[in-house]
Amino acid sequence: MRYFLHLAYDGTLYHGWQVQPNTLTVQREVERCLSQVLRQPISTLGSGRTDTGVHASHQVIHFDAELPAGLEEATVVYRLNRALPPGIATRLLHEVPPRAHARFDAEARTYEYHVRTVPDPFSVAHSLYLDRHPDVEAMNEAAASMIGSFDFTSFSKVKGGENHYVCTCYEAGWHEEPGGLVFRIRANRFVRGMVRLVVGTLLAVGRGKITAAEFKAILLAQSRVDAGSAAPAQGLFLSRVEYPEGLVPEAAAPTGMPYFAGRPR
Amino acid sequence: MRYFLHLAYDGTLYHGWQVQPNTLTVQREVERCLSQVLRQPISTLGSGRTDTGVHASHQVIHFDAELPAGLEEATVVYRLNRALPPGIATRLLHEVPPRAHARFDAEARTYEYHVRTVPDPFSVAHSLYLDRHPDVEAMNEAAASMIGSFDFTSFSKVKGGENHYVCTCYEAGWHEEPGGLVFRIRANRFVRGMVRLVVGTLLAVGRGKITAAEFKAILLAQSRVDAGSAAPAQGLFLSRVEYPEGLVPEAAAPTGMPYFAGRPR
Repeated sequence: MRYFLHLAYDGTLYHGWQVQPNTLTVQREVERCLSQVLRQPISTLGSGRTDTGVHASHQVIHFDAELPAGLEEATVVYRLNRALPPGIATRLLHEVPPRAHARFDAEARTYEYHVRTVPDPFSVAHSLYLDRHPDVEAMNEAAASMIGSFDFTSFSKVKGGENHYVCTCYEAGWHEEPGGLVFRIRANRFVRGMVRLVVGTLLAVGRGKITAAEFKAILLAQSRVDAGSAAPAQGLFLSRVEYPEGLVPEAAAPTGMPYFAGRPR
Repeated sequence: MRYFLHLAYDGTLYHGWQVQPNTLTVQREVERCLSQVLRQPISTLGSGRTDTGVHASHQVIHFDAELPAGLEEATVVYRLNRALPPGIATRLLHEVPPRAHARFDAEARTYEYHVRTVPDPFSVAHSLYLDRHPDVEAMNEAAASMIGSFDFTSFSKVKGGENHYVCTCYEAGWHEEPGGLVFRIRANRFVRGMVRLVVGTLLAVGRGKITAAEFKAILLAQSRVDAGSAAPAQGLFLSRVEYPEGLVPEAAAPTGMPYFAGRPR
């Protein structure tokens, strides 16, 4: 049987999602605990990688397993949460068709980047602090230039490893919230390092270092050299992964779930 | 001139509020940064101690200083936030009459204890996780028995160091919030370790280990031996310190301030 598992994790302590030799990654911990709870070796595949220090308030992975007879999915979730380290949690496990794929079937992903403009000692690990309020209008004018299909080479971390750099961006904008701002970007796919480079460059717009028109020119240049520096990992959350209707139960939607929120409430 | 400074801090990294030899405390960091920003040695006095690992979303301290000519209070706040480590922040500095006292003039203090009943990887450092939902009604029945003036010897950490154990409790109760619960207790004063022992014992009521009537009997016994074990420090926040009208500006009220909230929003 194939299963989807819905996860949230604090990236602070982990070298990203993906298993790498001799490093502590979220995938390593999840596979270790799944294998322990299900009493069989489990390999997982995530909807996408998150880099070192990046959080996920909603990550979806798949794996194949035979659940021991009589063991309900909700019981697996409960036992898994007891086994997992405190910075990783799961809320939902459900069976999917045998060829369902956490990565290839994902239709859209949403990332959020959290900025504080009022010093907040409790969100240090989960946001970027700016001591001046950025120009949100200018940042949103720049962000709007990404809506549609564009080659994001300018905002990719490295050449290589990707077939192409075209992403279709459905939503990109900043929203005020008490004491800070959240940037939300929803697209069919993301290239490596994209959100942190986009946010870093938008923050340069917000500080008045470059204009919204210059941001658009950087995007259209398809050249990595002009983008700003990457925003730090601690403000970034993978916050939603969407699948075709019917593949994932309604209950998986992150709306209103406290640990699926971009930041704790 | 005497000043009140309003602070918030994440207690995770600190051995409580009060300066002790050879340990990292919040007071030590605040005095170091105040002395640096004001260019004179500064000694502070807090409204009360917080123990190792306990947070404050609103702590008030006083100190005496001559502000350099032309240096505005808001500028001191700005510079102080730049100097302070990320887990400590200030929002307000204001002059008070020369004999105003952060501890003796405080009329009420409020503590909050945060519990999660849904696993939340982002609030591990700021809450206690319970994997079963406690009986809130029973806990609130027990909590109500503390309203009024009682000798809290049963819920004090150690005998000694206090003149008396009588506290007048104005509010004590649990409130549901998404994914968890908050216990709020407001009193004229607290004895050492009181909130953690009260919460630990209330959680025993919530698990059905003791009844609300037994909780009340423990309180009235004025004996430390019967109380439950102390709830862990990481869920506890000093969340408000109140003074007589006029001593503290309206702006100091924690309502709606993101980092004055018991937990990050």
